[in-house]
Amino acid sequence: MWEVGVIGATGYTGLTLISILKSHPHIKINLVTSNTYKGKRISEVFPLLRGIFDETLVPTDQDHRGRCDVFFLCLPHGKSMDEADHLYDNKSIIIDLSADFRFEDIGIYEKAYLKHRAAHLIPHAVFGLPELYRDRIKNSKLIGNPGCYPTSAILALYPLIKNNLIEGNVFIDSKSGVSGAGREAKLGSLFCEVSEGFRPYNIGIHRHEPEIQKEVKKYQDIGIRFVPHLLPMNRGILTTVYGRLKQPIDTENTIALYAKTYKDEPFIRIMEPGIYPDTRFVRFSNYCDIGLKTFDDGSFVIVSAIDNLVKGASGQAVQNMNVALGIHETTALTGLPQYP
Amino acid sequence: MWEVGVIGATGYTGLTLISILKSHPHIKINLVTSNTYKGKRISEVFPLLRGIFDETLVPTDQDHRGRCDVFFLCLPHGKSMDEADHLYDNKSIIIDLSADFRFEDIGIYEKAYLKHRAAHLIPHAVFGLPELYRDRIKNSKLIGNPGCYPTSAILALYPLIKNNLIEGNVFIDSKSGVSGAGREAKLGSLFCEVSEGFRPYNIGIHRHEPEIQKEVKKYQDIGIRFVPHLLPMNRGILTTVYGRLKQPIDTENTIALYAKTYKDEPFIRIMEPGIYPDTRFVRFSNYCDIGLKTFDDGSFVIVSAIDNLVKGASGQAVQNMNVALGIHETTALTGLPQYP
Amino acid sequence: MWEVGVIGATGYTGLTLISILKSHPHIKINLVTSNTYKGKRISEVFPLLRGIFDETLVPTDQDHRGRCDVFFLCLPHGKSMDEADHLYDNKSIIIDLSADFRFEDIGIYEKAYLKHRAAHLIPHAVFGLPELYRDRIKNSKLIGNPGCYPTSAILALYPLIKNNLIEGNVFIDSKSGVSGAGREAKLGSLFCEVSEGFRPYNIGIHRHEPEIQKEVKKYQDIGIRFVPHLLPMNRGILTTVYGRLKQPIDTENTIALYAKTYKDEPFIRIMEPGIYPDTRFVRFSNYCDIGLKTFDDGSFVIVSAIDNLVKGASGQAVQNMNVALGIHETTALTGLPQYP
Amino acid sequence: MWEVGVIGATGYTGLTLISILKSHPHIKINLVTSNTYKGKRISEVFPLLRGIFDETLVPTDQDHRGRCDVFFLCLPHGKSMDEADHLYDNKSIIIDLSADFRFEDIGIYEKAYLKHRAAHLIPHAVFGLPELYRDRIKNSKLIGNPGCYPTSAILALYPLIKNNLIEGNVFIDSKSGVSGAGREAKLGSLFCEVSEGFRPYNIGIHRHEPEIQKEVKKYQDIGIRFVPHLLPMNRGILTTVYGRLKQPIDTENTIALYAKTYKDEPFIRIMEPGIYPDTRFVRFSNYCDIGLKTFDDGSFVIVSAIDNLVKGASGQAVQNMNVALGIHETTALTGLPQYP
Repeated sequence: MWEVGVIGATGYTGLTLISILKSHPHIKINLVTSNTYKGKRISEVFPLLRGIFDETLVPTDQDHRGRCDVFFLCLPHGKSMDEADHLYDNKSIIIDLSADFRFEDIGIYEKAYLKHRAAHLIPHAVFGLPELYRDRIKNSKLIGNPGCYPTSAILALYPLIKNNLIEGNVFIDSKSGVSGAGREAKLGSLFCEVSEGFRPYNIGIHRHEPEIQKEVKKYQDIGIRFVPHLLPMNRGILTTVYGRLKQPIDTENTIALYAKTYKDEPFIRIMEPGIYPDTRFVRFSNYCDIGLKTFDDGSFVIVSAIDNLVKGASGQAVQNMNVALGIHETTALTGLPQYP
Repeated sequence: MWEVGVIGATGYTGLTLISILKSHPHIKINLVTSNTYKGKRISEVFPLLRGIFDETLVPTDQDHRGRCDVFFLCLPHGKSMDEADHLYDNKSIIIDLSADFRFEDIGIYEKAYLKHRAAHLIPHAVFGLPELYRDRIKNSKLIGNPGCYPTSAILALYPLIKNNLIEGNVFIDSKSGVSGAGREAKLGSLFCEVSEGFRPYNIGIHRHEPEIQKEVKKYQDIGIRFVPHLLPMNRGILTTVYGRLKQPIDTENTIALYAKTYKDEPFIRIMEPGIYPDTRFVRFSNYCDIGLKTFDDGSFVIVSAIDNLVKGASGQAVQNMNVALGIHETTALTGLPQYP
Repeated sequence: MWEVGVIGATGYTGLTLISILKSHPHIKINLVTSNTYKGKRISEVFPLLRGIFDETLVPTDQDHRGRCDVFFLCLPHGKSMDEADHLYDNKSIIIDLSADFRFEDIGIYEKAYLKHRAAHLIPHAVFGLPELYRDRIKNSKLIGNPGCYPTSAILALYPLIKNNLIEGNVFIDSKSGVSGAGREAKLGSLFCEVSEGFRPYNIGIHRHEPEIQKEVKKYQDIGIRFVPHLLPMNRGILTTVYGRLKQPIDTENTIALYAKTYKDEPFIRIMEPGIYPDTRFVRFSNYCDIGLKTFDDGSFVIVSAIDNLVKGASGQAVQNMNVALGIHETTALTGLPQYP
Repeated sequence: MWEVGVIGATGYTGLTLISILKSHPHIKINLVTSNTYKGKRISEVFPLLRGIFDETLVPTDQDHRGRCDVFFLCLPHGKSMDEADHLYDNKSIIIDLSADFRFEDIGIYEKAYLKHRAAHLIPHAVFGLPELYRDRIKNSKLIGNPGCYPTSAILALYPLIKNNLIEGNVFIDSKSGVSGAGREAKLGSLFCEVSEGFRPYNIGIHRHEPEIQKEVKKYQDIGIRFVPHLLPMNRGILTTVYGRLKQPIDTENTIALYAKTYKDEPFIRIMEPGIYPDTRFVRFSNYCDIGLKTFDDGSFVIVSAIDNLVKGASGQAVQNMNVALGIHETTALTGLPQYP
């Protein structure tokens, strides 16, 4: 039984983590923190936990070093780096859901975010996308859990870039449910400002663009253009990627390449020709569904779908924890997608 | 390991049953049927099951007698009675999610529904509300799983009627998500006919009214008025009950009565004064949350919330199965509510 | 051409007012104010107005006395009374959309809200429900525009209480879209905290209860219990009223009574037996639709539907303005309901 | 006063047409037809019209030739061509909202749809996009109203293709509300199959692709790839177009080009740099909002938003009628966008 702490437990990723961890047979949550709600029971913040998990929230800003085998940091970027710096002891596993430890190149991070105050930890960190970096995650004590958009985009592109098949730039058109904006009282996240509407935002300036770009460049030297949109729904990301192959490959063979690349991956499902992902069919699960179509002129459309709070955040964090602990990777992550 | 069949597996209750049963450690689903989709894999009908449960659908209209230890009938009323008549052998447990075996009094059934063609089975059937009839469910081979609205209304009223506390009639104002209308292509269930709208329907003529009424009358001889409304959301029922007590009891003591009545019930949660249920907080779970307020003049407001597909249908059906099989009642039903 | 000012123009009622007034042939909006957004063009706050209405917002806290023929106050209660006190000159018409001038009895107001700082104006104010108080609105310079819930509840009850037909208390079960909570960044109004959920709130303590109660008591001395609920949709209120008649009257005759009571009302539509309102069918219009059913034992169910931002706020405010100015009451209010 | 007929009045485009035409000062609707609902009043089909427009529906399959000055055909493709063939007399103006008269090249039409049975009328037909073909619409008696997706895509691309600025193919990623699927009881349009989900469909095989392609080719010989997606909302289309310019042009200058191209267009609004369209801000209006960003490497992102039922269907049809009748083009189309 490993003891686990959720640092910053009162957002949607914290709640989703708790929900997953409560069904984990080898885990005990022995710490939940919040500065805003300290002293309250977490079931007062989230009444759905009433009678199930009534733990009292302790302040985040307190010394929790060494108290847990695994710490999940569900904090804003900037805040996470300080907490990680404090907690890091090369014994506890730290899984950071912010952007602070996703970038190997501090220059890219600082350009997109802010000055890094725990730069000495960056060499210890690994980008927590198990499908690409499982082996390195195994021995890591500091895991930078990928962003939700990057997870959907990188998994969609990986089989092509790994094999150096793309010509020219790609366009990444992503659409996310509102939970991606977090559980903060912001005008733009109000029901009346979101429902019955649809809009792009941060075109060419979203901070997930450099995160996707730096991963893509590791495999193939191509540029990306990333355009996120806000969907009037709670959860789910659908990413549609457009580009052109160096040499045309037909749909069947491209699908075969994807199937082969991901053949041992428990959470990736490749659709047959003519079938495309729907966020409904991965909702509340750790799956990433991928479908695609290619055309005679070499152009391609790849579509991926994830639940932004699960495979795009807390589910992937638990997957990383399982890998890092050396236990079965799918433990606590076998729940079916749920709809309606 | 018991073998289970889902008869009529391609509706929302069928899908929800499969989702719950897949996590049940003592159950194997060895039969899924559908006349409409026979020959297809169920994962073609519900792509979310792809790679998880790819069983082929066999025709419902085929001889399945004796093939399973437990049969769940997810069929329309009228059709269920015939299927039950065919399958009943006093060995297999039959759990019928239609209305066909909910009424002890055939006259009430036939007035609300249609001529009963398996009347000889009615004496063998038990109304599958474990909180009221657990002992009888234990030994039953034929369980009439309650309606979604009746579950929410009866559980809200039970502590009061059991103790004969109500004076005069009660008004039951219920609101249900659209999944209650089933997975049929009906104009009234279209997205554009439901979203951004709210309406009552079938006032005074809904068939769940006699189902609630006959249960209420077993405990206290009062009348009910039932008004259902359609909510622009997928799942969840919230029921608000209005009436008057014979003698005023304050909110705290009324809550205490509820807490005492349901103290051993694993799926009923009673809210503290000033806290009321929200369907979000029971979504995807088998919980029924109840909150209430009473007034000096004896009038009361009781509010209950369930997930209509879980405690209002498939979850309760699995609860009934667990009781009937003599295994732990909460098995496979411990998943947390999920939001957002 | 009358000149009109919208004081506090950047909420949903302000926007809805502007939308209605822009189609009014006898009106020119010559003043829009906001403290938060002062100096910005209103089309920067509401991009849908781009190229249509690009007026610059001036501070609310500035001397606008005498600048307009009609002032609409779209301010929070407390703030409105001060502004009205400042603007009142017995020449300009002031229509206040807050609660500050809805109560003839200052004691009731102060119990529910706060100390009234412009009590000397209360005798000049009229409750702006034209169906009940048209004659007094005609000569008024200060109109307290009714609350959204009270509009729906009072119009539903009026034909019964006017004729003294009700026995005992009534239960008023109301459900409102989220826009009723205003355009403020509040956690409880977030998309993810509202969509796919439904909940009651403020049972027995909502401030619209005394507003409904004081109107009801003017006609018949009965008590009310008011329970509001939050609907996962933008706009619309549906109110379901439960109670009992002194003497049973059948549905047809009760409908006839309603039709007769409201026969000259341009914005009230009475449904035939078996037909009930749907908020979709009044959306974006000033209609109040009413349907009902009575039972042999005297109990009744009345259902009313309005758009909370139109008949429940800004549409009714324009209706009041039209009455007060002595022009055709439906001017600028003849737009059809809109769906989907 | 012109007399107008709506042939096939009981779908969403029929309803939207009626809503717009009811506010048109020079129009009288003297004919509404439906085979399905013949004999009923249209206000029984659409209760929101109760007391406003209670016209009786006559059968579509009846001789209406010469009865109206303008006929709007809101019929499925295939059916429209027969009706147009019957009604065409070179006097009445026929505006067809189906695809039957959108294609000058019968070969493209027949490949995408079906054998054309009124081919002799095609030379008389004009593609009803006023921004491109106003002069020809003026003298036309047969107008093929454009598809919703094509309207959004062509208006987004027109300034670039008109000036021959694009290099290589473009990717058109469109997202539509559910009303685009029509008012038919289809499984895929059910609330529970749409809400809280998002999916692409008909990639590379949607019939609006050849409609966009044939218009684009008239101006510049480039290929397009069109991918439609289904949004969980009622109305609105947002189209995001990706491609590359032959020579990089910066965002400001590209916007200036758009502004110049559309400078006299009453329904097109060009956004400033960094501002992008939102379907909310055109909802219920005839506007098409366009925003864009270009990059140093010549790649571009153009975003357009329309209400699919207004500028994408019935509003544009009325705009075409106004042009064809020689009256002011914006008559009855000046209603503001509406939200929330």
